[in-house]
Order: sequence, then structure tokens, then C-alpha cells
Amino acid sequence: MKAIRQLTIIGVGLIGGSLARALREAGAVDEIVGAGRDEAHLQRARALGVIDRYSLDPAEAVRGADMVLLALPVGAMEAVMRAIKPQLSADAVLTDAGSTKGSVIEAARQAFGELPANFVPGHPIAGTEDSGVEASFAGLYRDHRVILTPTENSSADAVERVRALWQAAGAEVLEMDPEHHDRVLAATSHLPHLLAFSLVDTLAKMDDKQEIFAYAAGGFRDFTRIASSDPNMWRDICVHNEPALLAMLDRFEADLKRLREAIAHDDGDYLLEVFSHAKAARDRFCDNE
Amino acid sequence: MKAIRQLTIIGVGLIGGSLARALREAGAVDEIVGAGRDEAHLQRARALGVIDRYSLDPAEAVRGADMVLLALPVGAMEAVMRAIKPQLSADAVLTDAGSTKGSVIEAARQAFGELPANFVPGHPIAGTEDSGVEASFAGLYRDHRVILTPTENSSADAVERVRALWQAAGAEVLEMDPEHHDRVLAATSHLPHLLAFSLVDTLAKMDDKQEIFAYAAGGFRDFTRIASSDPNMWRDICVHNEPALLAMLDRFEADLKRLREAIAHDDGDYLLEVFSHAKAARDRFCDNE
Repeated sequence: MKAIRQLTIIGVGLIGGSLARALREAGAVDEIVGAGRDEAHLQRARALGVIDRYSLDPAEAVRGADMVLLALPVGAMEAVMRAIKPQLSADAVLTDAGSTKGSVIEAARQAFGELPANFVPGHPIAGTEDSGVEASFAGLYRDHRVILTPTENSSADAVERVRALWQAAGAEVLEMDPEHHDRVLAATSHLPHLLAFSLVDTLAKMDDKQEIFAYAAGGFRDFTRIASSDPNMWRDICVHNEPALLAMLDRFEADLKRLREAIAHDDGDYLLEVFSHAKAARDRFCDNE
Repeated sequence: MKAIRQLTIIGVGLIGGSLARALREAGAVDEIVGAGRDEAHLQRARALGVIDRYSLDPAEAVRGADMVLLALPVGAMEAVMRAIKPQLSADAVLTDAGSTKGSVIEAARQAFGELPANFVPGHPIAGTEDSGVEASFAGLYRDHRVILTPTENSSADAVERVRALWQAAGAEVLEMDPEHHDRVLAATSHLPHLLAFSLVDTLAKMDDKQEIFAYAAGGFRDFTRIASSDPNMWRDICVHNEPALLAMLDRFEADLKRLREAIAHDDGDYLLEVFSHAKAARDRFCDNE
């Protein structure tokens, strides 16, 4: 890949910071400019060597950039797109790392009037429950997948440049239809996060919560790890992937209701059938851990 | 602790096998006798050095034992208690490792007519999603908790001997009221397992399940790890802790319904409040990972 001259990352947290570190390690970028709202945070990012310089003004930060990454909660995309529009050069490629794709495409349509040829939505399937630039590391994307969801207007050249960006960070890049992306992610990411947040909240509201959490074993810690994720980011995802998430939630709740009835009626056969089916599926699909 | 002369373990899997290994390492037992229904499995346990000898007949296996551990799915307890009753010596202490305690005490009441003074129900809060003697290891209980739920008839001496048994394996031993145990475990263990099994089953029934699981990231793997647990064991737990589990499930479902409404009505404030509350609770209570 031709090295990027100036990469501007708006939102220098775990996702943006890890990409910056990976590209630097790969020698794939000359200069990295950060933008965000929290100056202390940007100063730490610079001190860590993740970015070379920063601006609190996203428009100023994108000036001169040939590649711009929006690594923001999806609810913040439209306002930032509007802000950078006047300074975005004609040959700059714009991409994002948002967890929902339909809503980000809609945000771009609103902000730019029509979908720009240089805009290529993307979503790295990687992350941890930690957030912030301090948690970022160069290996986050290595052997992880990045899904690009080009719009009908995305140019082949822009798609190729975003593909090269993530490949330089070690990721495997795939393309997917945006609606399909949102449906698949609702199932494997958004719904599990919602359930984990909900369960921990339910337990934390109980009178004997101290004792309840004191007796939580390793299984509970694993199950609820994603409930330590960034609440702002997940609020945005739930709101911005509403149709796909609610469809999955309804499906889940209907199945859970049947399990409830089986427990209430001592229907051990049904429970065993469901649990065995689930175990077989998980053992088959998650065998590479 | 005075070494156990003959420990008989009925059900030589992850739980029973790990206790056997730990006690051997600690020099806390002279002879370990296994019992179960699967001879090939017991032969492997003997070949691994986990047990010294075995019998397919639980009554024969408890003959001469001064300590008997039932490490069985809770649905199998009553039948095994009935079977061993004629051969259980008067000075033998009987304990179990079942995940529900009210139902095991009721099983003992049914099997023995009245609750024996030498019967001390217990539950080690340890385990992995793996099962079977091959997965057992001596360190499983080290720094983990074991909850004893003595009955109104349990003698102080019997409680002391069971306490010493688990302490020799490195565990911290506590006592709790059986109903309280069942309520706390419904919250932190039984409900999470039910949700994990249910979610994986729901996804595995979808037409594009191959693709759905292909895009599952680390968070999903952690969240669903407990869905790889033993389906028979969990069928029994759900059936045998029905009132406490259904009460927790109803509470969870009511809270989830409110989250569903918040998503449907774009009520980001409510989502943020719940997610923030959950994250704060998890970060506070699970900080030792």
C-alpha cells in the first residue's frame, strides 16, 4: 500500500488509537492527527505517541488529510460529518468504525446531501470492554475481521484505499450489505450487550446485591464482561440499530418464554433439547478459542 | 485435619475428580473409591490416578467409607441416596456438591425418612464449562468458595469434617441457609446459564447461523462460554431450583421489557442510566479479575 500522508482520527479511543498504533508499526502512515472534545485525553494520546498533533476542532483536524477515520459513538457521526464537510479535501477518503452501518450511511446522506464517492463505511469486529486511548494496542485488529459496507456511490478506488488501511493493521477485510451487517451484528453483538447490561442492572438493584456479587463465580464474570463496556457507545448503538435489535430481542424473548414454561411445567426433556442444541452449536462455531 | 481413611466419590467428573486430585496432593486421604454408571469413564479415572478403585454399584462403593461425596446432577441424588443407604456406615459423613440445596435436602428427607445427623449439604462455587474427569485438576477449588448449608439435624462434628475436607482442597468454606443459597445462585449462576443457552439456541435456529457465528467477536465468546456447559446438569438445576429461578427470571424479564420500550421510543437517557448503573456495579464487584 502507498503510505497515507495524513491520517486524521476523530475520536482517539480504543478503536482509533489501536489503528493509529498498528499503522505506525507497519510504517503505513506519515502523520496522524487526532481530534476530539477532551483536550486532556488528546494530550495523553500525543504523549503516548499515538498521534502527532491534535485539534479540538474536527474541521481543522481534517485539513490536509488524505484519510479520515471517524471512531465515534454512532450518535455523534452526523454532527461531526457536518462540521468537517467544509474542510474535507476532494481526494480525502472518509471512513468510520461505527458498530451500526445503516444509521451511519443515513447520517452521511443528511450531512453531505448525497453520499460522497469517497465515503466508505466500515466496522472492525474487534474491541475489548475497556475504552480510551490508554487501552489501545497495535495488535487489536490482527487476524480480526473488518466489514466494509460500501454505499451505491462509493468509488472502487476509495473502497480499495480503506481496505488497504485495515489490511495494514493486520485485519481481514470483507464487504457486506449494510442491512445485512446490522442484522448479523444485532444477533451476535448488540443483543448480547443489551442482555448483559440488563442482567447486571437487575442484580445491582436487589437488596442483597453485595452478597449476590460476592458469590459470583468465573462463569458470571465471563458472561457479564461486556457489561463493563462504554455505556454511551452502547446507548447509541441500541438507538441507532433499533429495527434489527428489536427484531432479535423479540425472537429471543419468545424462545425464553418457552423455556420459562418448560421450567414451570417440569418439562426436562424440552430443557435438555434446547441446552444440548445450544452447547453443540457453541462448541462447533466457537472451537477456535 | 485427620486424614480421611476412605473417600467414596459417586460421580467422578470435573467436580469429584478435582476434589480427589486436590486431596491426594494435600495428603489428606488414604484411599479414594469411585462409583458411577459408565465403566469406561471410571477406568479412565483410575488410569489418571484420580481414584484407586471403583464400583458400578454405589452401595458397594460406599462400604467402608468414612466420607462420601455425591458429585452428581441434582436430579440423580435421591435415587443414589436410596441405593447407598443400606451400606452407609453409621460414622460415615455424607455430603454433596449439588448446585441447588433445597432440592438435595428434600431428596435426603425422602431417601432417609429423616435428615441424617451425618448429612451436610454443600456446594463448591467453582467449575468450568468443561466436564468429565479429563477436565479435572487439583487447583480447581484453590481460593474458591464452598457453601455448606447444614440442615437442622446436621451434627457439629459432621459439619466440621466436611469443612476440613474442602479446606484441604484450598477452598474457603462458608455456611448459608439453603433457601438463601438457592436464591443467590439463581441470580448469579442459574439465570445467566439459562440466558446463555437460550441465546445460542435462538441464534443457532436462524437461517444464516453460519454467517452469524462467523462474525461473533470475543465478547460473544465470553458471553456464551457457559452455554458449553453440561446440558444434563443444567436441565436438573433448572427443574430443581424452579421457584427461585423463575422469580429471578420474571424480575429480569420485567427489566428487559422496560429496556425494550426505551429502545422503541428512542429513550436514550433511560438506556444510558441502566447501562451506566450496570457498568459501575460490574466494575466495582468484579474488580479482581
